[in-house]
Amino acid sequence: MDADTKAKLERIFYPKGLALVGASGTPGKFGWVFTEGLVRMGYEPLYPVNPRESEILGLKAYPNILAIPGRVDLAIILLPAPAVPQAIEECVAKGVAGAIIFSAGFGERGGEGKRLQEEIVRIARRSGLRLIGPNCLGLYCPASKVLSFPKVLIDKVVAPSGPVGAVSQSGSFLDNLTITGAAKGLGFSKLVSSGNECDLTAVDFLEYLGEDSDTKIIVSYLEGVRDGARFLRVASAISKQKPILVWKAGTTARGSQAAASHTGSLAGARSTWETAFTQAGIIGVHSQEELIDDLIAFYHLPPSRGRGVAIVSGPGGIAVATTDTCIDLGLEIANLSPQSRRELASIIPPVGSSGDNPIDLGPAVLLSPDITANAARVLARDPSVHLLLIIGSVRPGFRESIASLKEELDKPMVVALNSLPEHIPEEYNFLADRGIPVYADAARAARALAALSRYYSRTQP
Amino acid sequence: MDADTKAKLERIFYPKGLALVGASGTPGKFGWVFTEGLVRMGYEPLYPVNPRESEILGLKAYPNILAIPGRVDLAIILLPAPAVPQAIEECVAKGVAGAIIFSAGFGERGGEGKRLQEEIVRIARRSGLRLIGPNCLGLYCPASKVLSFPKVLIDKVVAPSGPVGAVSQSGSFLDNLTITGAAKGLGFSKLVSSGNECDLTAVDFLEYLGEDSDTKIIVSYLEGVRDGARFLRVASAISKQKPILVWKAGTTARGSQAAASHTGSLAGARSTWETAFTQAGIIGVHSQEELIDDLIAFYHLPPSRGRGVAIVSGPGGIAVATTDTCIDLGLEIANLSPQSRRELASIIPPVGSSGDNPIDLGPAVLLSPDITANAARVLARDPSVHLLLIIGSVRPGFRESIASLKEELDKPMVVALNSLPEHIPEEYNFLADRGIPVYADAARAARALAALSRYYSRTQP
Repeated sequence: MDADTKAKLERIFYPKGLALVGASGTPGKFGWVFTEGLVRMGYEPLYPVNPRESEILGLKAYPNILAIPGRVDLAIILLPAPAVPQAIEECVAKGVAGAIIFSAGFGERGGEGKRLQEEIVRIARRSGLRLIGPNCLGLYCPASKVLSFPKVLIDKVVAPSGPVGAVSQSGSFLDNLTITGAAKGLGFSKLVSSGNECDLTAVDFLEYLGEDSDTKIIVSYLEGVRDGARFLRVASAISKQKPILVWKAGTTARGSQAAASHTGSLAGARSTWETAFTQAGIIGVHSQEELIDDLIAFYHLPPSRGRGVAIVSGPGGIAVATTDTCIDLGLEIANLSPQSRRELASIIPPVGSSGDNPIDLGPAVLLSPDITANAARVLARDPSVHLLLIIGSVRPGFRESIASLKEELDKPMVVALNSLPEHIPEEYNFLADRGIPVYADAARAARALAALSRYYSRTQP
Repeated sequence: MDADTKAKLERIFYPKGLALVGASGTPGKFGWVFTEGLVRMGYEPLYPVNPRESEILGLKAYPNILAIPGRVDLAIILLPAPAVPQAIEECVAKGVAGAIIFSAGFGERGGEGKRLQEEIVRIARRSGLRLIGPNCLGLYCPASKVLSFPKVLIDKVVAPSGPVGAVSQSGSFLDNLTITGAAKGLGFSKLVSSGNECDLTAVDFLEYLGEDSDTKIIVSYLEGVRDGARFLRVASAISKQKPILVWKAGTTARGSQAAASHTGSLAGARSTWETAFTQAGIIGVHSQEELIDDLIAFYHLPPSRGRGVAIVSGPGGIAVATTDTCIDLGLEIANLSPQSRRELASIIPPVGSSGDNPIDLGPAVLLSPDITANAARVLARDPSVHLLLIIGSVRPGFRESIASLKEELDKPMVVALNSLPEHIPEEYNFLADRGIPVYADAARAARALAALSRYYSRTQP
């Protein structure tokens, strides 16, 4: 990425001075939500801009950007669309590095909106001011305390710093990612909602995240990219170093039409994208749930060294069905060594069970909570086993035995509980809090392992 | 189904006298789990059989089946495999209608197990005694208080009577179905685990459930059926009257091999099954989660009258992606009437939103919890809309407004929250308790609507 853009983005993500244009002292308004949130996050120096107020939440308010005495690297603009060009003029005059334009009513509406969008780009280009949006939520960088996602602010969610970076053409996806990630204990480097992309695009941010040493895993929601060739070039280079998970929408004609009115993006057929993703080493996903399922696996698990999976299950039927699922996903059912079979035979009662992979522990699992972890321990030592998929039967002691097992393992392990998370949240949260990827269904657990195995088979062949 | 089999099955599901062979007074043993459970369920008359005990949990224990003074319609046999033939001899002599053989160690183990299985069949055939299993969990019929699923008994789960019938070649799947169903408020008619099927098969039970007036929806987990033509004939006839959801495992070579050691079934290639399912009007599913997702939709929703879906969403990005998903699943995005568009325009603020289907409510949804239900109410009146998919943003008041909307609707409506159920269980449980199908992901909600629409397009063309 060129040095000037990179330098601007550093100022945008770690701003020394932030102007909130359209700040408000009236609770319930977005201008209040942003001010309250940034004050609560502890960001400073924060400069609320509103010509009708002199103080907002204890901070001095300024009538315009030029009236701010200190340096301003980033402006967040909450004004109605017709008032935005004047604010951009002020940003240019003030020497601001970047402006997040939260306001909608631009290119995605066509007509006058489109004209306004072209106007703000023209103004910004005069000084090298970079624009994020319009019609976007802006960004979240826990390390610099900059957060402009309204739902996250309203819900008072705070996520820790960590290795996940994201760029999204849907702001609400980032709301969900932040809230879900914080609940699951994931940490974030930089999250960016790129909106209509009148200047900086998703591909620019992807390139930045690729070079950003704080970012180790990248996730993205995309509706369309204007320069497909550049996107694939950038993604191919990054995917050799960091996994990139992409949820691509707008892959049908009707979805593409919806994308046009959502962010004004051009979309494209699914098959084209899927081929391109495979070539670029991108992990393609098809829903928010799949994206978060896979992200959690990449976040917590060590690299896989092959695609041989061992399935350990109390329920026998689900073990059979999951075998099919694993095969369909390109995994292999590991052929266990004679030694593993002997050791398993000493752990698993012989009747109503199967000591060959997939391991069916039989009814014993109901009365012996440790049996699952004991069997898994044997499998983890088998050189043909690269991945462990535990289908658990929730019993007293089960979760503790799995948690203690995790400490010993250097191979990826996931757990499926096949019970409703809303019914037994504490079981899910116990394992998740200990860094064990846990899924409500074995098919989802298998899908996450398959994504992991596919990715590492390219980078660690 | 022939009259004799039907009469036997009536006696099996509603037994006047149940012998528990291998009952035990020692807590922690399966013989104790079953006795304690049936006593707690209030089933009577219950006859524990154990030659080494004279009383178990306050009930008189008998040394063998023939020593029982009263009528016995059903025997549940918990003995080790080699002791089973003698118990079957006694059932024959006593005139028992059916025996559930919980014990494993038969056909699924080959060799001596296979021989034992052939022997018990020979013995049973002498009197017309019908066998369920071996290597099965037996059945659950809430109306007759007969329950022989050990995990359900251990967890003290009690499900109400209701319209869901099930037959499964995996017992643990029925444990999960019962526990999940009870948590979601679903009621059951008869659930049967058919195990090795040495006599009565999944197809026999399917046929029975088809004719059973208490059963309105049938779910099934199958690994293989011996008489495929009969299965399809039976299913085709039933599917005209009742939805049949089938989760078919053993569709890959390795899965088929696992099925053989699980229940001794012969399986078959996925493509063959999928074609057959379509022809027979069966709704095929690929995971436990998909099965339960779809079941909940069929359970609570009225028949659909077409495949036009309206999507109402706070998050704009997920609305775009869900449009793709709906199209890929064979649904149509309804073209709204001019009147609907006008009415929506009066509800939804014009900026940062889209009043055309998929409806993107924009940021307004964060501050106006009723807006979702108000938009959905307009859509429900539009004749082009047959199905409603709400992608909710959890805010105070949202769930109440959706619950009140449900009362007015005669069209199927599902809700996706796109937040973790283990994080906000009360939001999920509130809607589920009111009979509103609620999913953690919009793609799963769309999948359930598509299954509903496909089924009713055949039965109500």
